[in-house]
Amino acid sequence: MDAPTARRRLTVARVGHLATVTSVHGAHLVPCCFVLESDTIYSAIDAKPKSTLVLRRLENIKSNSSASLLVDHYQEDWTGLWWVRVDGTGRMVDDDAERVRAIELLAKKYEQYRSAPLSGPVLAIAIDTWRMWP
Amino acid sequence: MDAPTARRRLTVARVGHLATVTSVHGAHLVPCCFVLESDTIYSAIDAKPKSTLVLRRLENIKSNSSASLLVDHYQEDWTGLWWVRVDGTGRMVDDDAERVRAIELLAKKYEQYRSAPLSGPVLAIAIDTWRMWP
Repeated sequence: MDAPTARRRLTVARVGHLATVTSVHGAHLVPCCFVLESDTIYSAIDAKPKSTLVLRRLENIKSNSSASLLVDHYQEDWTGLWWVRVDGTGRMVDDDAERVRAIELLAKKYEQYRSAPLSGPVLAIAIDTWRMWP
Repeated sequence: MDAPTARRRLTVARVGHLATVTSVHGAHLVPCCFVLESDTIYSAIDAKPKSTLVLRRLENIKSNSSASLLVDHYQEDWTGLWWVRVDGTGRMVDDDAERVRAIELLAKKYEQYRSAPLSGPVLAIAIDTWRMWP
């Protein structure tokens, strides 16, 4: 897979899988909606019902900024499998203008966010490296 | 989601997402095929072409046994979203009998493994906790 294909697939993917690391060096993993803007991933805590556990991703980023987001395609004919992963540095978005912009981008990508406005925290991941397979 | 539903969904899922932690406390993430046997997840390195990077998951487990496997369902009607995650302790399977048994289980679940016999290492994750949403 070449780099433009990887970027295109990450851009249009509807769901990603976000891995972070807990304060005691444990693996943590959740599916999430996200948007790619230049070399930054934005993801928001939306209005879907959550247990408090889901917010673990935010606590993790505060103690360890390492974050990895994966999108992939599965089919029974394994010659068509692929995945794209971006590894980088996560942070909570504190700047109001950046937060508004991220929410606009998320609502542009996901119609679902337009009827359930985002009011929670926004996570940003600055992409350091792209990996892709095959 | 109740516990029997979570177990059933994990059992039949065709692909999971495996998070581990690198030796320098970084997040790592790959999609993988797997099988659930009692409270253990087995996953194998198969004959699909890989870069050496993909084997990072094995190096990670040696330095940090924390492992998390997620299966999830995405659809545009978000009222139907769900995920199941098992967190636990990973190890390489050294025992020959256990390794043969794991490979048999994987080949039983995945027809694809029958024509591309598994010859590489097998990863086991002893499940400590189940999480599910909603």
